[in-house]
Amino acid sequence: MLGSCLDRVREASPLVHCITNYVTVNDVANAILAVGASPIMSDEPEEVTDITAICDALDLNIGTLNRLTIEGMRRAGARARELGHVVLLDPVGAGASPLRTRTALELLELARPDVVRGNASEVRALALGTTSTHGVDAAAADAVSEQNLDAMVEFAKGFAADVHATVAITGAIDLVADAGRCFVIRNGRPEMSRITGTGCQLSGVICAFVAAARAVAPAAGDVPAATTAAAVIPAPAAPPAEGDTTAAVAAAVACMGLAGEVGRAHLAPHEGNATLRNRIIDALSHLDGAALDGGERYELR
Amino acid sequence: MLGSCLDRVREASPLVHCITNYVTVNDVANAILAVGASPIMSDEPEEVTDITAICDALDLNIGTLNRLTIEGMRRAGARARELGHVVLLDPVGAGASPLRTRTALELLELARPDVVRGNASEVRALALGTTSTHGVDAAAADAVSEQNLDAMVEFAKGFAADVHATVAITGAIDLVADAGRCFVIRNGRPEMSRITGTGCQLSGVICAFVAAARAVAPAAGDVPAATTAAAVIPAPAAPPAEGDTTAAVAAAVACMGLAGEVGRAHLAPHEGNATLRNRIIDALSHLDGAALDGGERYELR
Amino acid sequence: MLGSCLDRVREASPLVHCITNYVTVNDVANAILAVGASPIMSDEPEEVTDITAICDALDLNIGTLNRLTIEGMRRAGARARELGHVVLLDPVGAGASPLRTRTALELLELARPDVVRGNASEVRALALGTTSTHGVDAAAADAVSEQNLDAMVEFAKGFAADVHATVAITGAIDLVADAGRCFVIRNGRPEMSRITGTGCQLSGVICAFVAAARAVAPAAGDVPAATTAAAVIPAPAAPPAEGDTTAAVAAAVACMGLAGEVGRAHLAPHEGNATLRNRIIDALSHLDGAALDGGERYELR
Repeated sequence: MLGSCLDRVREASPLVHCITNYVTVNDVANAILAVGASPIMSDEPEEVTDITAICDALDLNIGTLNRLTIEGMRRAGARARELGHVVLLDPVGAGASPLRTRTALELLELARPDVVRGNASEVRALALGTTSTHGVDAAAADAVSEQNLDAMVEFAKGFAADVHATVAITGAIDLVADAGRCFVIRNGRPEMSRITGTGCQLSGVICAFVAAARAVAPAAGDVPAATTAAAVIPAPAAPPAEGDTTAAVAAAVACMGLAGEVGRAHLAPHEGNATLRNRIIDALSHLDGAALDGGERYELR
Repeated sequence: MLGSCLDRVREASPLVHCITNYVTVNDVANAILAVGASPIMSDEPEEVTDITAICDALDLNIGTLNRLTIEGMRRAGARARELGHVVLLDPVGAGASPLRTRTALELLELARPDVVRGNASEVRALALGTTSTHGVDAAAADAVSEQNLDAMVEFAKGFAADVHATVAITGAIDLVADAGRCFVIRNGRPEMSRITGTGCQLSGVICAFVAAARAVAPAAGDVPAATTAAAVIPAPAAPPAEGDTTAAVAAAVACMGLAGEVGRAHLAPHEGNATLRNRIIDALSHLDGAALDGGERYELR
Repeated sequence: MLGSCLDRVREASPLVHCITNYVTVNDVANAILAVGASPIMSDEPEEVTDITAICDALDLNIGTLNRLTIEGMRRAGARARELGHVVLLDPVGAGASPLRTRTALELLELARPDVVRGNASEVRALALGTTSTHGVDAAAADAVSEQNLDAMVEFAKGFAADVHATVAITGAIDLVADAGRCFVIRNGRPEMSRITGTGCQLSGVICAFVAAARAVAPAAGDVPAATTAAAVIPAPAAPPAEGDTTAAVAAAVACMGLAGEVGRAHLAPHEGNATLRNRIIDALSHLDGAALDGGERYELR
């Protein structure tokens, strides 16, 4: 029953400040527009605090970081945190270079994101870099599978508790966890991994979903994920409470996966990767809450 | 009767130097190619004057400005002005941050663009920043509508006179004005506003149209927009004179809007934003002067 | 019989580090994914040596060079050369500005690329800048045609010998040469020249093909193009030897051209440039070795 989260995005139409990589930035902008929100891209350190101030959410994606954009991310992250905006960190390639790992960890500390979204190896790189009390590093594999699902759910919850954020580990199976509960989501298509940018798009879309969830509920009504989560696990049949960050993230993840399924279903035999990429955004632009309710496939752990 | 302007682009195939944002740059390049011109992207301050020297027009778009590209825009703008090339300023986000507003105003002063294209709020931000003698600031709304059309037409003409340029204010209704006349253009589809980049593409395409208009007529034959405009209002049934910048801009605006209409007409029910984005460029690549003559919808004020 | 080269890419799935322009970077990433390899984009000087170390090939494309990315290309090129990785130089716009020509020549010297890919005028600009002993500069035209084919084949071989690399000169007719032999390839469609990025995509795809060719054969088995080429011209009916760089480049060029043909064949009358761009990547994602064997059109000179 996550569909109401999508309807809220179309009603609230939040503004998302994106500091994101230049590889997939166009798709990120179009995905945000397709769900009914609006993007602004700006990374110049001299203006990012002004831009983020007029937005509802901030998407920090380190996919093609450089010294200028890192400084932009630092300033925007600090300012957005100060203003109580939604902040998401997408640690693209964390673990692939010391600069990426270090930058992601620094932003985690500085901007205290509401949401961290990455693949399993990126999130593991972050977990290894934090002084976790959960010893989660050993449990974290390169990908979530049916075989390691229990361990990965615990890993996700533990890391979420450590960083006081909702954590989304996306891949063939998607996990969206706070300290007390984990959505295990099975929407999506394997072909999505052969197109660049579906993860980056998802990060932008998550920003829109969380900002919309909060726009309806007063910020004070937010349920701090890491502290009271055990008490707030909703029955899957009830729509998520307003201001429920983790449910909003789960809704965005399911929505993106469902868009992939719908997009794939419309491919002609001669169509392939590039058309699928377009069909995903096409599907995002048509989906509504009822369609999401009908197509979502998840369980709570 | 704006079709001849498009035919001239395909004949002259002008070269457009673009310093534009990294969000929509690919679409800008493909849109310029689709109308028969050629793009070159270059923003490094050390080379922009060399690159602009071999081009016919310069597109300055501040959508993702940073300290390096601002310096690139300054140098390219000054050089293109010196060489008498077509210069267009697209003040993306003017008003959203002091840096953007200041940069746009500085480029307006330094490069003295032939064309300024933006949405109503961007153009208003520029107008508020110039020492206008028309008191236009109060008249400018956030968007052009049937309700405020008369006032907005006056605003556009007044701002055009102030900055000695053709001014294009685009949105649901598009205005293309010089000091003496204003094309009110009603091509286009509302769905275009939910795709990123149609405005940026239009700016690149306008550069191609104006360069082509001048390539046919000697530059000396240009009608200075701000001084003699009242005398040159053509009857809508006559094709625009060679070298008529304002008519060339209007033709580009109508062409882009018509491409949106044609593209929308070919959408299947399951197709949405991303396919429409492609269909617009598809349509641009097929349109010719006769099709534009048949589809254009405008009046002169 | 170049199809086996494509099958090897899908088996080896090499990782390609791209420092490429922001205009077509998304298409480059998706083209690399479509042939079964994986891209990583990174240009920050502080991390490029770390990133390139975990990759198999490096794509240096100067399309939107700036002072930071030039430094990134220098460092990555030197490191990749040191590690014996595949290195490709795409001298976009060489000849259009002194900075581009100088940077391309410097990278040619510093990174000693295995492959240089450009259009005829770009390659000529490089040849004019090297102290060639072949006097090739006079022979090089702006494009390869049936009229100048013999001279251009000699030019390509001569430049390949000078720079100890495989040289791909792409256009209406594509040449892929080392010192001793030249593939003359006639796949492709003229419409591809009206879409931005097919050349950039090809450069990324070539990196994948050459890395895959070497991944199967030990690097020591490589045939140095410039010294023993005359002895290794295979009969066209035999699949290329493992580790044959020039054949792998030719296979990538034929593959891209064939994708253009397949993509064009699926266009509906109202579809144009943007849909063709997508159809090319669609076709790349479907092609296999047998299809390439069936569709390739080339001769050896």
